[in-house]
Amino acid sequence: MDSLRAKSLLVGLNFDGVGTKIEIAERVGIHNSIAFDLFAMVCDDAAIRGAEPLWFGSILDCNKVSVSIVRELALGMVSAAREARVAVVNGEIAELGNRVAGYGIHSYNWGAGVVWAARKDRIITGKKIRRGHAIVGVAEHGFRSNGLSLVRRVFSLAYGPDWHRRRLGRDSLGRAVLKPSRIYTSLMVAITGGVQGTPTAAVSGMCHVTGGGIPGKLSRLLSVNGLGAIIRDPFVPSDVMLECQRAGEIADEEAYRAWNMGQGLLIVTNEPDQVVATAGRFGHDCRVIGEVTREPVIRILSKGADGKGGRYLCFRS
Amino acid sequence: MDSLRAKSLLVGLNFDGVGTKIEIAERVGIHNSIAFDLFAMVCDDAAIRGAEPLWFGSILDCNKVSVSIVRELALGMVSAAREARVAVVNGEIAELGNRVAGYGIHSYNWGAGVVWAARKDRIITGKKIRRGHAIVGVAEHGFRSNGLSLVRRVFSLAYGPDWHRRRLGRDSLGRAVLKPSRIYTSLMVAITGGVQGTPTAAVSGMCHVTGGGIPGKLSRLLSVNGLGAIIRDPFVPSDVMLECQRAGEIADEEAYRAWNMGQGLLIVTNEPDQVVATAGRFGHDCRVIGEVTREPVIRILSKGADGKGGRYLCFRS
Repeated sequence: MDSLRAKSLLVGLNFDGVGTKIEIAERVGIHNSIAFDLFAMVCDDAAIRGAEPLWFGSILDCNKVSVSIVRELALGMVSAAREARVAVVNGEIAELGNRVAGYGIHSYNWGAGVVWAARKDRIITGKKIRRGHAIVGVAEHGFRSNGLSLVRRVFSLAYGPDWHRRRLGRDSLGRAVLKPSRIYTSLMVAITGGVQGTPTAAVSGMCHVTGGGIPGKLSRLLSVNGLGAIIRDPFVPSDVMLECQRAGEIADEEAYRAWNMGQGLLIVTNEPDQVVATAGRFGHDCRVIGEVTREPVIRILSKGADGKGGRYLCFRS
Repeated sequence: MDSLRAKSLLVGLNFDGVGTKIEIAERVGIHNSIAFDLFAMVCDDAAIRGAEPLWFGSILDCNKVSVSIVRELALGMVSAAREARVAVVNGEIAELGNRVAGYGIHSYNWGAGVVWAARKDRIITGKKIRRGHAIVGVAEHGFRSNGLSLVRRVFSLAYGPDWHRRRLGRDSLGRAVLKPSRIYTSLMVAITGGVQGTPTAAVSGMCHVTGGGIPGKLSRLLSVNGLGAIIRDPFVPSDVMLECQRAGEIADEEAYRAWNMGQGLLIVTNEPDQVVATAGRFGHDCRVIGEVTREPVIRILSKGADGKGGRYLCFRS
């Protein structure tokens, strides 16, 4: 505590929820991975500012409590908390009857909050971003917990009410959509040093690719200094994302605005090698995918279903 | 901060939600008071331990966002936060489509969390409770946010699907049920001294009368030392509570286990005059209603619809 105080700490609280991805868990009947989506949404959003998420609590709204589902959720929570390195300190389960509904008999909605602390001198605002800084992408193999309403609409229009049972490669479409979010929290805390650690790389900005995709989230970060970006080598979107694009005839522009398209975290840095090395230690697939430019425009070499590999998309920053 | 550190602080996180009382707000079409229920549930539960609630954040799950309802909720939040003396630091609104349902077109569920701090030497565990300590009751004029499923079941069976439009005295039954919770947080913090203040009375236990009523909540507190209580002079339950008892033929025993029956907060103390004086300054109706006894039994002179004023109810502690 002594060392903490000396650094002048900021403390805050961050809330979010899993949203409609829970319907996919209900369809597939698998509930032990959805905690990864919850922790990713809540903790990763806190960590991108240079903060260290510490204490986690959640509110589970059920129509009627199913002991077996709650057990699965709790097991997932233990694993996700370990992955994010946060302590679960409180939780509430509410039985709300027909105020909660979904697919099947037992439905639930799940939200959470996390208390974070940050050293004031390590807060990341984006103000230190300069033209020429590298943009490192960290891979994501699913949808995370974003753009799921679009996914559900597309697949149920294309394949009917039981769309989740359709095969996709060796798996079902439902399982592919349910793939849990990568939690980047402990990677981010390792890079920034969090509250008590030593930073492993100089980072000028971080961007959690959730709703709005790269154009939405990166432009918000870069607008602080009126800059733009060129993404020359993005990761390839997951098969299920490309499948959803095709099934819904979704243009690459729209897909890049709705989903992460293969990278769930962007790190802006002038020490990309150190960032990549740290990510490797945490088992994340990660590489330089682009750089910061002077023009306030975000250009992405599309890896979407339309223009695979050939065409640049251009978004106002 | 210096003075805080010297006192050895505990910090924690507490979550809860409004539950099904929101259906009443939807029925009546009034949404500016439900924040009082949310803050009461979340903050009062934290404060009974001797903690001081500090930062508040919430998650609002909607089927579809209604700007006018969200505005009413937000206005209520400002008032409730002022009443509880906590800072609202974060909030999330999620649009979940048909995963959220209720009465009418626009439905929502609302949960929240609060970060609290407590001086270790001011934590209240119940271990200092002694035989003969006074039990001070603080009045509550409605249901708070507990036992509402029972209320809804009783009234809809007795008066049909539009039960909330029925008159009760000068008001509608719906409005009477919706009456917002008293928030006791700032009173409790004033009495215990919170983190930085000076205590105004020596308190050995506090009991937030929510689900389980006085028997459920007080027995849990008294069981720490294997004690019991006699409640000789409880407040009278509100008219709507008595009306619900009559409409549902609910025995006093069951009513005292389901609802607060007129007092939302119990304070165990050997300085009752100071507690009553402090409560008066905060505008709370408050008096000594009983005392701690050696036998591990809770006896309450019933003020319920059955035995109005004549009969003792006896609950195992």
